[in-house]
Amino acid sequence: MSKQKKILIVGLGLLGGSYAMGLSKKGWQVQAIDRDEYALAYAKEKGIIDQGVSRDFEEMVAAADRMVFALYPAAFVKWVEQYKHLFRPGLIFTDVSGVKCGVVEPIQAMLPEGVEFIASHPMAGREVSGVQNATDAIFAPANFIITPTEKNTPAGLAFARVLAEELGFAHICQLSCAEHDRMIGYVSQLTHAIAVSLMCASDNTHLAEYTGDSFRDLTRIARINERMWSELFLENRQVLIEEIDQFTAALQGMKEKLIQGDRAGLEEMFITSTRRRQAFDR
Amino acid sequence: MSKQKKILIVGLGLLGGSYAMGLSKKGWQVQAIDRDEYALAYAKEKGIIDQGVSRDFEEMVAAADRMVFALYPAAFVKWVEQYKHLFRPGLIFTDVSGVKCGVVEPIQAMLPEGVEFIASHPMAGREVSGVQNATDAIFAPANFIITPTEKNTPAGLAFARVLAEELGFAHICQLSCAEHDRMIGYVSQLTHAIAVSLMCASDNTHLAEYTGDSFRDLTRIARINERMWSELFLENRQVLIEEIDQFTAALQGMKEKLIQGDRAGLEEMFITSTRRRQAFDR
Repeated sequence: MSKQKKILIVGLGLLGGSYAMGLSKKGWQVQAIDRDEYALAYAKEKGIIDQGVSRDFEEMVAAADRMVFALYPAAFVKWVEQYKHLFRPGLIFTDVSGVKCGVVEPIQAMLPEGVEFIASHPMAGREVSGVQNATDAIFAPANFIITPTEKNTPAGLAFARVLAEELGFAHICQLSCAEHDRMIGYVSQLTHAIAVSLMCASDNTHLAEYTGDSFRDLTRIARINERMWSELFLENRQVLIEEIDQFTAALQGMKEKLIQGDRAGLEEMFITSTRRRQAFDR
Repeated sequence: MSKQKKILIVGLGLLGGSYAMGLSKKGWQVQAIDRDEYALAYAKEKGIIDQGVSRDFEEMVAAADRMVFALYPAAFVKWVEQYKHLFRPGLIFTDVSGVKCGVVEPIQAMLPEGVEFIASHPMAGREVSGVQNATDAIFAPANFIITPTEKNTPAGLAFARVLAEELGFAHICQLSCAEHDRMIGYVSQLTHAIAVSLMCASDNTHLAEYTGDSFRDLTRIARINERMWSELFLENRQVLIEEIDQFTAALQGMKEKLIQGDRAGLEEMFITSTRRRQAFDR
């Protein structure tokens, strides 16, 4: 760990801002780079960051020992490509990307000697964006997943772990990038694909007055940031397509049982789903 | 309204018990018929009902002016078939069934002159069953839907409405049986079909530790009473099959966009779903 608890965050949106807030509270000195000067001014005024710049950040980057990238995946890869010549030896950085294989492979391949990227995914978020909505309260119930490769070192892993501990995540664990992307394809992307498709299937907004909690719970995540999610879906599309196929086959199986009037078959599905769902109770 | 606020409830499970509790609190005299003597004894001891019998209920039925049937749909139809000869002229009764066409048509067709069935659906429930879990608190946020036909009278409608008011439903409305079944096919049955199919698609219980709120919200309703729901699904299968087809087409459309790498097309779906979902915010 860098002894001075000093960190540079690139991208001061909801997640970057929430990291900044949580680390500032723990006594870290937080610098930030973002295109949006208003976001930087807001964060500085609120004590979320110590210092922020929107351009001429070369010196700030060159001086950094620890960084967090809180950008969309493609922008993250592009940023590193463009500015990696500034990185000092000994720099360790992590990210917040919701997909891993697509960012970890290209970035680890392009880094100069002595610079380490330890990838991680904080499974936290809100349905709103921007530093104005940042809050480190989103981390307390959440998982923090570290996805090391053979290029990572104990120092890199320790940095990711300390970060998660300082931010107060409920649960810290490690997966390979491929395991992560498969898991996220099921527990997050497939559920969002379903909720969005349900809303797109037909315009049933006139039914709003009749809906209960179960419909609201199922479709809450259909309110979605289209730029970020289209990127996440496409980065992980092979996995997501397989998950969609597997889910569709199960739903078609149910339809077949309805057509056949197969009550025993339906009951069997309900019993299976009830038993499996119990494993997900907290 | 029967001036004495007296009612006979057939079926003292979760819903029947919750009706009994709510009406007792409002000063109604509540009688109950149930096969389960333990449930009756429990309800009597807790002051949920005044009187309950498991058999030899002929006199109790013959004396009733107002009744509520809180049975599964098929059992409800069968009960009326078997005991309708006991009904006195002037009897008005309602039900709690989650599907309407399949119970309203046969029952209204078989009733003796002077006996009225005004159908209704309280859109309330819990993931647990039995009178031991009954609570009238489930009605406060819920919709009460009355589905009258040309066979119903102002007196029948008034009874259903008073019942809903006494039980404290948030919202009372009227739909035709067909409108009701189409609506319920979308907002309730399709969502349950999706949640169950998601759990049945593959055994991903080992992923429980990685799941967040959105997965839990979406699959909460996959814990399901297999006897009741297989009956509700089959009673409304034509509607449900159409809804499954429409939803599957939307999901396949998304898959096609993933295969094509059609980012603009995905963004369009996300924008549509976000806009439509806003209509469902409370």
